[in-house]
Order: sequence, then C-alpha cells, then structure tokens
Amino acid sequence: MQHKIGIVGFGGMGSWHAELIDKIDGLTVAGIYDIRQERIEYAKSSGLHVYGNFEKMLADPEVELILAAAPNDLHKPLSIQAMQAGKHVVSEKPVTLNTSELVEIIEVSKKTGMFFTVHQNRRWDEDYLTMEKIYREGILGKVHRIEPRVHGSRGIPGDWRQEPERGGGMVLDWGVHLLDQVLRLMGDIKLTHVHATLTNITNRMVDDGFTALLFFENGVEILVEVGTSNFISLPRWYMQGRDGTAMINDWNLNGKIVRAVGKDEQDTIPVRTAAGITKTMAPRREDTIHEIPLPVVQSDIKDFYKNVMGVIEGKEEPKIKLPEVLRVMKLMEAVFASAASKQVVQFEVTGSEKELKEVNEDHE
Amino acid sequence: MQHKIGIVGFGGMGSWHAELIDKIDGLTVAGIYDIRQERIEYAKSSGLHVYGNFEKMLADPEVELILAAAPNDLHKPLSIQAMQAGKHVVSEKPVTLNTSELVEIIEVSKKTGMFFTVHQNRRWDEDYLTMEKIYREGILGKVHRIEPRVHGSRGIPGDWRQEPERGGGMVLDWGVHLLDQVLRLMGDIKLTHVHATLTNITNRMVDDGFTALLFFENGVEILVEVGTSNFISLPRWYMQGRDGTAMINDWNLNGKIVRAVGKDEQDTIPVRTAAGITKTMAPRREDTIHEIPLPVVQSDIKDFYKNVMGVIEGKEEPKIKLPEVLRVMKLMEAVFASAASKQVVQFEVTGSEKELKEVNEDHE
Repeated sequence: MQHKIGIVGFGGMGSWHAELIDKIDGLTVAGIYDIRQERIEYAKSSGLHVYGNFEKMLADPEVELILAAAPNDLHKPLSIQAMQAGKHVVSEKPVTLNTSELVEIIEVSKKTGMFFTVHQNRRWDEDYLTMEKIYREGILGKVHRIEPRVHGSRGIPGDWRQEPERGGGMVLDWGVHLLDQVLRLMGDIKLTHVHATLTNITNRMVDDGFTALLFFENGVEILVEVGTSNFISLPRWYMQGRDGTAMINDWNLNGKIVRAVGKDEQDTIPVRTAAGITKTMAPRREDTIHEIPLPVVQSDIKDFYKNVMGVIEGKEEPKIKLPEVLRVMKLMEAVFASAASKQVVQFEVTGSEKELKEVNEDHE
Repeated sequence: MQHKIGIVGFGGMGSWHAELIDKIDGLTVAGIYDIRQERIEYAKSSGLHVYGNFEKMLADPEVELILAAAPNDLHKPLSIQAMQAGKHVVSEKPVTLNTSELVEIIEVSKKTGMFFTVHQNRRWDEDYLTMEKIYREGILGKVHRIEPRVHGSRGIPGDWRQEPERGGGMVLDWGVHLLDQVLRLMGDIKLTHVHATLTNITNRMVDDGFTALLFFENGVEILVEVGTSNFISLPRWYMQGRDGTAMINDWNLNGKIVRAVGKDEQDTIPVRTAAGITKTMAPRREDTIHEIPLPVVQSDIKDFYKNVMGVIEGKEEPKIKLPEVLRVMKLMEAVFASAASKQVVQFEVTGSEKELKEVNEDHE
C-alpha cells in the first residue's frame, strides 16, 4: 500500500521530513505548500510538487495524510481544516500553544474519525533511549534524581520563534521534548509538584531557557533544564541511583556509568585544598568503583512514520498517544504558572490526597 | 607578641589546625583537650601538651584563645564557658545548630568583651576566590546564574555526623560553606526567596545532600548543591553571564572560561541526532567563541589566624563577622523550612516590599 503525504510549511523541519520520507517504503511526498517564494523554489529544485494553496493540497484525493510543519500557532487551524477535509494529520511539536487548543483538535479527530498524532521525534533520540534502558534495567540501583539538560549559546532563532503569539520560546520548543521524555520514563508514576523558573537573557518577548524541578510520587526528582546562553554545556543527561551514576555528555553519546563495587575504603585519603581538608568529598579509590560503558541503544526515526501508516491501515496502536501529548501540554502550562507565581505548583493529585479529597467531599 | 591557643577536640579538624598553627609566626598551640584516649596519645606523640580537662585549659593564664573543634553540638557550651573564663574563641563550623544558640553566644561575647569568630575557612578556597574574581571583574558580562556543587560518593561519615542532635547532615557540614561563599559573593544584595530539597539516600537520620535554589534581588539565581551519592561529579562551579560561561571542574582548579567574541554565524550547521536536527543547540563555530584560562587566585589560609591575632591586638577588623555567620545560619534554617514544607520560602524582604509593608503599617 502506498501512502501519500502533503507537507504544509517547508522550512527546516519540513524539508527534514521530506528527506526522511524519501527513505521510507510505502510513503511518498505528494507535494508541499509554503507561503515563502524561496522555499517554493527550493522545493521545486528538489523535484517536489508544489501546491498553489492549502485548499488545493486538501482537494487532492491522492493525499491521505497532512504534515503540519508551519509555525506553531498554525498547527491547530491547519490540522482541523485537514481532518474536516478527510485527511489524517501529523503535527509538528509543540502541537498547540495551550491545552484548550489541543482539546479542540482532539474533538475534531473524534468527530471526523481522522487519525491525529504529533511528531514527538525525540522519543527516538538515542541518548534518551540509552538512559531509559539504564533506568529500566536498574543498572544504578534505585534511581532518585535525573537531570536532562540541553544547552546552547546562540540565544533563540531570530524568526517567528521569538514571537509569543506564534508559540515561540524554549519551553514550547525544547521543553516539549524533554518533558515528554521524562514523563515517558516515569510511566504511570504521578507527577505531584513542579517548581520552575524562566530566563530572558537574550530575548524579552519569550523565554530563552528554563529550569523545571519535577517531583514524582515515587520520590524521584527530575531537574529539566534548557538554556541558550550556555557557552559551556553541562552533560545532556545525569542520572543518580543508590549504587551508581550515569552521564551522557553530548549528542554523540560520549559518557559513562560509574558504579560502586560494594567495597569500602578503610583509609580514605582526604582531599586537601588551599583552605581545608575533606574526607567526605574525596575521590573514590579506583578499586571501590567500576566504570562501565553506556549500553547505547540504537533507533530508527523511520519507525515514527511506519507506525503512522500502521495506524492508518488499522494494524497498530499509535506510538504517540494523545493523552500523553495532552499531559505534556498541561505540564508546560504548570511550568509557566510556577515561574509566573514564583511558587511550587501542584500538578497531579497523589493517591492518598485523592482519597482524602473524596472522603472530604462525602462529608460535605 | 606571642599568642597561645588551646584546642578542644583533636579530631581531623583539630589536628589540621595544629599543623597550620605550627607554621604561623606569633601563634602557638598551648595544648589540646580530647576525651578520646587514642587522640590524647596521638597528640602526645606529636609533642603537644595535653590538658587533663577543659577547666585546666581555661585555668591556664598562658592560654589566650580557645579553638572549639569538638562535635557541632558542643560549640555553644564550650564557647560560652571559654568566654566567661576570659578567653577569646574560634569555633569550628557550623557554629551552632540553629540561630537562637548563636544569638546566645553573641550575647556572651558582648557581655564579656571577648572576641568570638567562626572558622569559615572555605572563604580562602582558591576555587571560590577565582569565581569571585571572575564575577567582580565582569569577565562574563552580566551574570544571571551560578551553580556551586560539591559531589562525593561515600555517603556521610559514620561518626557523630550521622546524628541530628549533634549537628550532623550535609546542610550544616557543607551547606554552611557553600551558602557562606555565595552570600559573600552577592555582597549587599538581598536574597528574597529559597527553594530547597534534601536527600536521604544513604542515611535516614540526617540529610546526606541537598539542593537550594536562591533568588537574589538583582535577578541572579544560585543553585547550591551538595551530594554524597554522586559517583560522577558535576563541576565544582558553573557561572553564566550574558557573554560567557566559566566552569571550575574540580578541587585542582581544572576549568575554563568560554566567551562570545561578538561574531554571529550566518550559516549555522545544524546538529543531527538519531531523531532530529537542531540549529539552536548546535555547537558554536570556533571563530565565534574564545576560550581563556581561569584567572586563578591564590590564597593563604594562615591569613585567617593572622586576622584573629590582629583583632585581639586591636589592629584589625574581623574578616569573619558575626552578622554574616548569623545570616548563613538563618539561611540554613530557610533551607530546612523549604524542604519540609515543599514550598518556596521568603527569606529577606525586598526594598519595594518593605516600603509597601511600612505604608500599610502606617495606615493601620
């Protein structure tokens, strides 16, 4: 079966998708639509068909699926229009600027019966998948803290990504990936509280970075950090368990795991600094720890589209589920709320709190 | 002039002091007192006089100064007894277990006229002094975030430091240094809010680590972190300014500064990962940044005792001032309060809030 996709918005991500789709059996780009003349020229020079407007793309019966890769504020109207025209939709991330817009989309998907999903592509990033494996396999013992970071030093791109009304800012741009990754990592565990801060170092219009400390019901704390004024990058991932620590330094998956070997030092040699000594913070003797390489997991992002086709053909469950996407969107709103109020905000009610609430309601 | 000091508590820090004092002109160890037989033997074998009890040390007219280096809960009674016996006092840190105990000590110091100070030795640590220089000289442009961390992987020492009633735990042990350093770095700037978490990974009795996010009135955010289950250490210092980042990796002052050279890249090459591309987070092209070495500041911890002697002789102001020590103690209480309530706590009232409060009070 051959599926055809129309790409709306042929910027950096749009053309990335076109290149990817070119390598996938069963899926072809029917054509693209963009309002920018230079992108139209570029598409034509790449041998792609260019529709004169979005309506013409939707009117093409060959087009079964639409990719919404235009600026963030357009995901909603494009997606709704496409589903109402009988097309399935893949939206770029962030799917919308807030939850109520996403709920509207979900309603249209239910009403029209069209499949709608979001390109949460970084679930396939090998750094994430490798940390997930370390976590699931208990390589570090009981994990208590995880710190995913993405650091750049360019500020934010000087296009629509600096405009709040178009969905600019780093919470929506990179937070949507990192928050999705850590929620997925924690699975069914409730996220009870959030404390977040935003930065405006290079840009006053939208956040150019943030930190979000997330508290999960199982005691795990996750510090998510995105920065665009970091001229030296801290590690992409840092994970602490009772018996070891794992670190992934960079996009190239440099990193390591260091584990205790269960052997104590009887005669710790203190570290001397200019002004004092410390045994507590002295480095470990080599024979009390063991360094192992990262169990690197490989992935293939083509699986995203293969899954989309499987869903359309009625053979598979979607890998990116809308309740997950909605939860990430709600979490981004909690990040904004915490930063604005400078307070810890509650996110999901825990089991015991919920029971208590029900008991109280019974007595009202 | 020759000053003589009596050392109470001859453990790791007590003997560190004795070795240091041995190198200082004008200061001599009159003798030590400890309740542990093996420490008494060790002192004798080092050629030090050992007093039979604390009262005998205080009764020695040659002893002008007492060093309180016993477990933390003893700093207060030892210091008060010494000042009432007409001795000046240097206390190890943390000076007391809470602010009310410190206030008691300060009252006795005022009443007796005896000098009392605290061995906040890590103000002389070269890593701290180097970051202070970078901050003061504006090498990174306007600074917005500072992250001092101390990471070990041994848990906490298995002695009185695991007992809460004796002042165990990492907030009191290492927090007292790191919080003192950052308050000193910020000078007169008010610290408005604190959000903190404690860890109990290897120990249920006392905290074996903490994180404290401090918000200053000038917009600087400081994340202070102490961990004892970190098998890989994150950098000792990380400081971000508008135009650059500074990092000190370890106790040996390995590290660097990376600054923007004010040159933009017109043709950023995106980073490709398994599942996507990013221009925002792509590494900088070499000619748009400039790496410079750390401006390492050297120090001499002997200056601590030289200052103590100068104060006793009426020639100098104390370098460790009691209002500073009290402020750090209050901040440690705020850290505990935030962690216990899981909320952001207010610390110092800002100028505008204070004015508003006064206006409101006028209208009452």
